[in-house]
Amino acid sequence: MASLKDVGERALIDRILKDIRGSSYIGPGDDAACMDVNGTKVVICTDIVSFDKHLAEGMTMKDFGWLAAAVNFSDIASMGARPVGILAAVSLPPETDEECLYDIMKGIMECSSLVNADILGGDTKPGPGSVCGTAVGICDHRVLTRGGARPGDIVAVTGGLGSAAAGWYAALNNIDEKDALNAVKRPIPRVKEGIILSEKGIATSCMDISDGLSATAAAICKSSGVGMDILWEALPKGKGVESVCKTLNIPEKELMLSGGGEYELMFTFREEHLSVLHDSDMDVHIIGKVTEGNRTNLIADGKSEQMESKGYEHFTKG
Amino acid sequence: MASLKDVGERALIDRILKDIRGSSYIGPGDDAACMDVNGTKVVICTDIVSFDKHLAEGMTMKDFGWLAAAVNFSDIASMGARPVGILAAVSLPPETDEECLYDIMKGIMECSSLVNADILGGDTKPGPGSVCGTAVGICDHRVLTRGGARPGDIVAVTGGLGSAAAGWYAALNNIDEKDALNAVKRPIPRVKEGIILSEKGIATSCMDISDGLSATAAAICKSSGVGMDILWEALPKGKGVESVCKTLNIPEKELMLSGGGEYELMFTFREEHLSVLHDSDMDVHIIGKVTEGNRTNLIADGKSEQMESKGYEHFTKG
Repeated sequence: MASLKDVGERALIDRILKDIRGSSYIGPGDDAACMDVNGTKVVICTDIVSFDKHLAEGMTMKDFGWLAAAVNFSDIASMGARPVGILAAVSLPPETDEECLYDIMKGIMECSSLVNADILGGDTKPGPGSVCGTAVGICDHRVLTRGGARPGDIVAVTGGLGSAAAGWYAALNNIDEKDALNAVKRPIPRVKEGIILSEKGIATSCMDISDGLSATAAAICKSSGVGMDILWEALPKGKGVESVCKTLNIPEKELMLSGGGEYELMFTFREEHLSVLHDSDMDVHIIGKVTEGNRTNLIADGKSEQMESKGYEHFTKG
Repeated sequence: MASLKDVGERALIDRILKDIRGSSYIGPGDDAACMDVNGTKVVICTDIVSFDKHLAEGMTMKDFGWLAAAVNFSDIASMGARPVGILAAVSLPPETDEECLYDIMKGIMECSSLVNADILGGDTKPGPGSVCGTAVGICDHRVLTRGGARPGDIVAVTGGLGSAAAGWYAALNNIDEKDALNAVKRPIPRVKEGIILSEKGIATSCMDISDGLSATAAAICKSSGVGMDILWEALPKGKGVESVCKTLNIPEKELMLSGGGEYELMFTFREEHLSVLHDSDMDVHIIGKVTEGNRTNLIADGKSEQMESKGYEHFTKG
């Protein structure tokens, strides 16, 4: 008998997927599911955030509500869809001050307003402090998945890396790094960017970086049956990374490769579409290339070594 | 400052709804939300079940998974929609044997198969033992809500009342009442009945009885701005109610009026549609009439008294 923490979240999900594959939709295993509703592509996803795991030092209940919405809208964004609504099932200890609940809902509303989504419904139950959000979106163009990267494609990300991880450290250690703290408290789901990528029809794969860059690269490679070479020097450094790493003597690689809670998008596209991307005016950074095989390598100082996929994984530690 | 348990779930939801009304869809406040997706009515809802509140004595993990799916499909059914899929966010303690998770997923799959729905996706996180399900359905005909009952309408339910509550008592007291126990472990969402009511276009309101008959009657009355007279002698007694009540010396009214975990539907319709209902071959029981005003009365032995709405309410006790 193995416990959940022995097995780890990704292996657990793989095992579950074995049993439930076969849906005619883009189903379990991607950031979100996609259903064909009389010709309209409806995208839907669910994600839990908990006080235990996601409430950084100094976060308010409104911030927590925002985060609960943002993580779900980020999954909608990574599919290239526009959010239309969210459902929120909130679990809180019965002793909780009622204002907490209203503040969480306000945070959810604020983030939903940002992406033009409605609150559709929800549930409230006694529990240890968590929000299970379910976001719904509509994809008007091509649905983006993890599975279409091809050797030769270029790998890119939508923004700086490591800010959220830097923010966690900053919060824990009372370091006043406003931008990094904001990346933790009020992450911006990359909805606009996801829609542009879908609309232009150029992304061969896409995923949000919520589990960290190395884990995201590994997931796209696994789903697409390819490898990747990521160039360390090309990675855009997120705000606050440098100063937090210097102050606390942490390697920048740790934050930029394995930091969780990042809501940028990683995507791949064919080289001939580079100009389309340039014209789109997005804040995009090219960080590597898709290769044959199945290895994800990090090339730093001209040396290539296999990139450990040690992003944030639930149940297991590390 | 008031805590959640001081305020109670229904008052909390009312307060939240005040802030978020105004969506163009049938939104928060009904059993499920309804979105118009390019002319198709997509119905969606979310509901949490937890070990703490919903795991009756003797229930297996498969039963628990089934229940998690059933409660959500019941909400889809009460809107008159056909289920198409479900997402399941499972929280379990890290020490849990991995087979537990697979068994929960199997239970969810079994119930989903029953109603022809796919598993669309989900999430797994460490937590105290709960499933947050989100079900999606499509309504091909009229969407049923709580808000359309009119004075003079007839009130009906789809099946026996109190079985689930009887099952809880049976499980707790080791009473071998198979049907009642099954009502707790493997409740059947009334999907077929909901679809018929939607298709025939005769239900003026509809809601599932998951919080008990009296609370459901009160909710329909509140949403519709009406009252109800419920006839005690007309209420269909659920399987196991009589024997469990006799054995444990519990009033039958307690189980049949206030028992939670019931997944029958309560609905209202105009008298002239009685023949349509008869021809539909559904297992339906007429239990009362919609009245002017806002009182829900129980008429027993020819005497009428106000029915207390004391169905199961989360956060508060009683």
